[in-house]
Amino acid sequence: MCQLLGMNCATPTDITFSFTGFAARGGQTDHHADGFGIAFFENKACRVFIDNEPCCRSPVADLIKNYPIKSKNVIAHIRKATQGNIQLENCHPFVRELWGRHWIFAHNGDLKNYHPHLDGQYQPVGCTDSEAAFCQIMQGLRHRFGNEEPSNQQLFLAIEELTREITLHGVFNFLISNGRFLFAHCSTNLYYIIREWPFNKAHLIDADMTVDFSQVNREGDCVAVIATKPLTDNEIWTRLEAGQLIMFEKGQTIGQAIIPIPLAVQEKNARNLACA
Amino acid sequence: MCQLLGMNCATPTDITFSFTGFAARGGQTDHHADGFGIAFFENKACRVFIDNEPCCRSPVADLIKNYPIKSKNVIAHIRKATQGNIQLENCHPFVRELWGRHWIFAHNGDLKNYHPHLDGQYQPVGCTDSEAAFCQIMQGLRHRFGNEEPSNQQLFLAIEELTREITLHGVFNFLISNGRFLFAHCSTNLYYIIREWPFNKAHLIDADMTVDFSQVNREGDCVAVIATKPLTDNEIWTRLEAGQLIMFEKGQTIGQAIIPIPLAVQEKNARNLACA
Repeated sequence: MCQLLGMNCATPTDITFSFTGFAARGGQTDHHADGFGIAFFENKACRVFIDNEPCCRSPVADLIKNYPIKSKNVIAHIRKATQGNIQLENCHPFVRELWGRHWIFAHNGDLKNYHPHLDGQYQPVGCTDSEAAFCQIMQGLRHRFGNEEPSNQQLFLAIEELTREITLHGVFNFLISNGRFLFAHCSTNLYYIIREWPFNKAHLIDADMTVDFSQVNREGDCVAVIATKPLTDNEIWTRLEAGQLIMFEKGQTIGQAIIPIPLAVQEKNARNLACA
Repeated sequence: MCQLLGMNCATPTDITFSFTGFAARGGQTDHHADGFGIAFFENKACRVFIDNEPCCRSPVADLIKNYPIKSKNVIAHIRKATQGNIQLENCHPFVRELWGRHWIFAHNGDLKNYHPHLDGQYQPVGCTDSEAAFCQIMQGLRHRFGNEEPSNQQLFLAIEELTREITLHGVFNFLISNGRFLFAHCSTNLYYIIREWPFNKAHLIDADMTVDFSQVNREGDCVAVIATKPLTDNEIWTRLEAGQLIMFEKGQTIGQAIIPIPLAVQEKNARNLACA
């Protein structure tokens, strides 16, 4: 199993605290030691850091922990390889451009017998089902809307339709963002928390670290954090239902739907928690 | 003026030595202090590091100097902004995907009255003429070859044709790579050196550092380094002619052409050494 971490905020926010707990699962408190990746949007720019080294001891991860990058949208991924080589081109998040914006995508799960027809506009560079699914989503958005960026509602419905198709192939927990919105879809495991005024203290599960968010945030700040498993032990995280898709903007949920998962797929998913 | 650095090699090679000299020009030995970027190919994977901080004191640049990434194709860029804001989305190198490969591009120069018709397949995220030129090249390659990756010769001719068109607009020194080839085009300033067996010692101009390449390289290794200005003071660098396009593979030149620059453009270029 891999693990996902996402953040979507009203104001640029430093993810150092959450990433410190998450990174410990990359070989220290958990066994997701086959590389990691993290992507930060800073306005329209996107910085992606990936490494083959276990996240708990990667020099690139150390940079992230010590160089607070403030961002409104972040997606991170730690990998426990069960399929596919530990090659850098297979590290999540993946990036592509659409409508003059970068899009980033990370997946936790395993898609079986999944061979989407990709017409060449977006082609995978590596060999994971995850990157193929991302290319299918990008292609599907371009097919639907051409060069015109859709409204929020149109975008939500399109992502919902595309997810409905891909999710038939297996476990498809994913996070995708274009720097404005962050979509989270749950097949099996995904939690979120929204931190807002008045902020409280939070204590990590994976490291003995506490932060008092009331000291570092202001009224108007609002931060949604999404993760495969809760990162803190003194806050209430909301578990996404199987099939639930949520669209976040400015740290708030602005759209959601349940995409039914056929029983046969649910049963397969329960048996198969591998990670592409 | 910005500065460019590129490397194309037969075997994965660490660019730490060249980058140390180059990085010093980012605010220490020279005034290119408005951000930097460096992209490394590792097989098909591509890692891009960009930062707004001056390269000489950026924590991201420190990581690069201390974490030797071995790569066969590298492109780096340091910026002295004369046009455009110091925004991260305007930092070179830029990245796009074509034919299931990442492509990276960096530009030193300034294109005037340059408004290419971009059909939407590749759109700039930032607002530089450089990223627009990159999108025009990517679009031009896709228009010519569809989903079929061309032969080396076809690719060279296509890049030559596209460059011929864009170079009419002004100073267009650039480096572009897809992880196999690296193309270098010179409008005004670009030098290269090919280091091969038997290797010698080299001493940086911008830092008191010497490396004996015969101690760290083997027979069969071959490294082409391309830079806006020579990086070492005890080696002979070859200056590219105005209009010269060179295609490198495995550290060797495998194709070259001179693209004539009209006299009126040459005169404008001589007056205008700004950096987009």
